[in-house]
Formats: sequence, structure tokens, C-alpha cells
Amino acid sequence: MDGLIGLDWGTTRLRAYRFDGAGRVQDTRTRPWGIRSLPAGGYEAALADVTAGWPALPRLACGMVGSRGGWLEAPYVDLPAGADALCAAVRRLRAADGMDLHIVPGLRNPTAPDVMRGEETQLLGAVAQRPASAARSAWILPGTHSKWATVEGRAVTGFRTYLTGELYALLREHSILGAGIAEAVSPAAFARGVDAARDSGAQGATSRLFATRALMLEGALAPAEVPDYLSGLLIGEEFRSALAGGLPPPGEAPGLIGEPALCERYRQAAARFGLALAPPVADAAALGLWHVAGRIGLVHDRGRPASEESSPC
Amino acid sequence: MDGLIGLDWGTTRLRAYRFDGAGRVQDTRTRPWGIRSLPAGGYEAALADVTAGWPALPRLACGMVGSRGGWLEAPYVDLPAGADALCAAVRRLRAADGMDLHIVPGLRNPTAPDVMRGEETQLLGAVAQRPASAARSAWILPGTHSKWATVEGRAVTGFRTYLTGELYALLREHSILGAGIAEAVSPAAFARGVDAARDSGAQGATSRLFATRALMLEGALAPAEVPDYLSGLLIGEEFRSALAGGLPPPGEAPGLIGEPALCERYRQAAARFGLALAPPVADAAALGLWHVAGRIGLVHDRGRPASEESSPC
Repeated sequence: MDGLIGLDWGTTRLRAYRFDGAGRVQDTRTRPWGIRSLPAGGYEAALADVTAGWPALPRLACGMVGSRGGWLEAPYVDLPAGADALCAAVRRLRAADGMDLHIVPGLRNPTAPDVMRGEETQLLGAVAQRPASAARSAWILPGTHSKWATVEGRAVTGFRTYLTGELYALLREHSILGAGIAEAVSPAAFARGVDAARDSGAQGATSRLFATRALMLEGALAPAEVPDYLSGLLIGEEFRSALAGGLPPPGEAPGLIGEPALCERYRQAAARFGLALAPPVADAAALGLWHVAGRIGLVHDRGRPASEESSPC
Repeated sequence: MDGLIGLDWGTTRLRAYRFDGAGRVQDTRTRPWGIRSLPAGGYEAALADVTAGWPALPRLACGMVGSRGGWLEAPYVDLPAGADALCAAVRRLRAADGMDLHIVPGLRNPTAPDVMRGEETQLLGAVAQRPASAARSAWILPGTHSKWATVEGRAVTGFRTYLTGELYALLREHSILGAGIAEAVSPAAFARGVDAARDSGAQGATSRLFATRALMLEGALAPAEVPDYLSGLLIGEEFRSALAGGLPPPGEAPGLIGEPALCERYRQAAARFGLALAPPVADAAALGLWHVAGRIGLVHDRGRPASEESSPC
């Protein structure tokens, strides 16, 4: 049987894809087993469980599983990095079941400095999906650690990470602003938060965080609106800061890569900054895993052979 | 017996001062009983314990004890607010021991919007200590919720709050950047963090937070240096943002009000921004409580009678 098992293995979550021989995802499984939240039996048990009942196929993983604290370190590849450099640095371990697990390395921006693990595979997948973007494109990958990345000449040439999702969770769960507050969906409060960040100019939204409390105290913001206001403030700060830093490059409409609901939030925020976006790419991790597997010879992607000169990225 | 019991009663801590008839602090007690961490028996028990064995003197409190979720709400006074407006809004409750507790209100900035509780009393105390500052001065009050305030014509005319201390605690305890890291004192790492925030320009330090992790991964920052680096980054962001927002007013060397160790950090950060500072004021809360008590007739401050026209603020 032909095909691939792809693993997107992050800090808090493990997602497994079973591909058929043509690269179509036949099954997807998700477990709460990130590298910081493994089940009893650790990596081996997690891998056995998440692939239970699936055929014995080549296995390729990306994400924090390849970090220094992961299963096997796949050292970062420095920018600018195309698919060749990334694929040459894929590492391999022999699991307890006697079969290999291949691990995609992360990328390192030596000038900023900054790092990514997992997003490099999503970028590969997104660019493979949109071959025209290989020459020049910009991407936003919203998440716990949001990334803004640029691609030029088939290589990732730059990226910057924003702690947006993690800051939101910290403020929501533990801070005087968000702790203990019931939540209601409020697009209007989200938009107000985005606008407050945008209008903070060079001061930045850190100077507007505490105002959330003042607004609530004077009744200008209902307690249930606070979470969406904070979300808007933090996502807005990400846009404000990125734009102040010259991102995206002039003339580029960035594409979104990520969960649809989160991408929709970013789309709304971009609109309030007057920033045009390319349509989002769904399932970029799966696309990227399949693409890397083809390039390193784990599978034979008939539609897009690994040796093809025009392979994107 | 003449004198006063002053209470600085915040969210996480209660500090009590016993003053003699001349306004000298004779005894200080601190309890971990903020309004969110009261002992069994609540406010009454906390007050009885922290004043146990002290003579029956007039009692005056400032801080979150006067918030909506506190013992008795003393509604905010709007800016610009001088000592008269503040003193006119002091509220009073009768405690279970049959004696009164007077509570100083907080201040509200209706234009920003922003609020403070406790710091207004520290500002009064600091200005009372430095009469020349009543006409025009700027102040920085470092803390969980740092405040930058301006005084003009004997009134607080503006202030802005930064969540610096709370963000530091959240990142230190719960984030991927700081959780689980042992700490070492590193003035060099602190200075590097301040510089990184300063040099982030209009992008702001939110775009530099994740770099802490990248620096650590590549060995450019030892794990034990991360806490001081983060502290520098966040305090630096406070300075960067405040300066970008036109604070302090041109020509003003702000005075510091707060814990000596924290003030020393702010002094070092200010130096890296080339910002001159006036010397810090110690015990500003005690000074302010005594000053307010004099003005509302709870005590007779012989050195500075309540009726004196030149009373600062």
C-alpha cells in the first residue's frame, strides 16, 4: 500500500494525517499530547495510539517534536531557506515498533533572532498549493506564537514572531483584566480593541491594556465583552507592530495560514488596518508534510515528483 | 493620645502605619491580606488584627479597599483633581468595633480613560514632601500597574497606567519564556532587555518578546538571565511607550515613588533612555495618608495645618 502518515506535533497537541498514495488525507486524528503533555509511555505510546489500526506507512513529523526538548532534535536551518535546505536537514529516529520516524527541522532567523518549528512545513504546503507565490509572497500564520513570514525566490527569507495568542491566554486566565469573566461573542468589542491598538500609534497597545479595566468600570464595556476587546487589542497590536516594522513588503497581500476561525479574526483585523489579504490556505501542515515526503523520497507524488525543477519554495 | 492609623490596602497586601501626633511613623505592619486575599472574618478581622494593641486612633485607608469590590466604594474623582476635591470625596464606614474607617477615593482620567487607587495618596504625599513640585512636576510610580502622572497647579492633571509588573509576573510564571526557569541577578541582562525595547522603535517590544526564547536557544542568553532580560524588556517598553506618548512633559525630570529596589530598576532603565530623574520619594503612602488626615481634620498636623493656603496639591 502506498501513502504516508504525517504528524503535526506541537507543544500542546498532536495531529496525525493518513494520506493515500495520491496525497489525499483519508483520516485525521487529534490528541492533546503535545511534547509538554505526553501520555504515560511518552512519545512511543503517543505514536502507537495515534496511528493504531493504520497501515504501516512511512512516517514524517514536524513541529516541536524536533526541538531540543523533543523526541529527537532536528537542528534549525538558517534563513534564507528553500525546500532543498529544509529537506536535507530532515532527521530520522528508529521507534520501538522497528519503523522510522522522520522529523522536519525548524527555521532560524539569524538576524532578528527568531525561530519557528512546524510553520516552515505549513509555509512549504501553502506555497506548494499556490505555485505563483514561490517567487514572492507574504504570509501570516496566526496562533499562540503568530508568525509573519516572507518568501522570495523559492525560499523563506524572513519572519517575525508575535506572542499574541499566548499573551491573550495569560491575560484572559490570570490577569486582573480577564480572570473570572464570563465570555460572550462580540464582534463590536473585538473591532473596538483592534481600533484602540491601531490608534495607539508609536505608543503601542501595551499603553492601552489597563484601559480595558477603566472602560469596564465606567460601564463603557460590558464584562462579557472584555475577552473579545482584549483579543482585538492584542491582534491589533500585532498588525500595528508588523506594519510599523515594514511588514508585509510593499504591494504584497499576505495569505493567511491557520485555523479558519482564527484566520477570520485576522481577516477582520486586517480590514480595520486597510490591509488587503490573499485568501487563507487550509490544511497547510498536511500539504507541507506531503510535499516534504515527496521531496525526500518517502512517497512518490505522481502529480509532483520530487525531482521536478519547478518544485515551489 | 494624638495620632493616626493609616492603611495602604491594596489588591494583594495590607500595610498599616501608626503615626504619633507629629506625623512620625512609630510602627509599620504588613499582612498578605489584600481585598482579594482576606483572612477568615474578612475586612473586620483583617483590620482588628493589623491594629491589635495599637491605641484607638482615627483611621484612614487608601487603595483598592475603596473600590467597587472593596469594603466600601469611594467613587473615583475626575481629573484634574487637587487635594480639596480628593478630600471632599473621602468616605466613612462604621466598623464592628464601633469606630470609623475613612477611605480615600481613587482618581479617574476621563479622557484616556484610566483609573488609580492608592497612587493618588502617594502623589499627595510626594508633593507634600516636595512643595516646589506642586506647581508642575512629573512622577513615575513603578509597580504591578505602573503609573506615569503629571501634576500642574496643585492638581493631578493626567496619568497613564502600564501593566508592566503584572505582565512580568504572568510571563515569568506561566509563559513559554519564563516558566520553570531558575533566576540569577543579572544587571547586564536587564540592560540588554531595556535596550532591545528602546531600539524596537515604533514596532514596540511585543515584537521582541519571543526573541527571548530564540536568544536562549542559541546560547546568547543563559536561562538564568531570562527573568532579568524580560524585566528589562517590559520596563523598557514602558519607557519607550511613555516617551512616544509625550511623557514626561518637556523639561520635567520625573520623580520616582515606590519600593527602593524597583525604583532602582527604573532609575537604570531611565539612564539607558537618557532620561534624567529627580530623586525617589520613600514612604509616599504614609506621607499622603498623614496629609489627607490633616486636611479632613482627623489629626492636627502642627507643622502643616489643614487650613494653610499653601498646602500642596
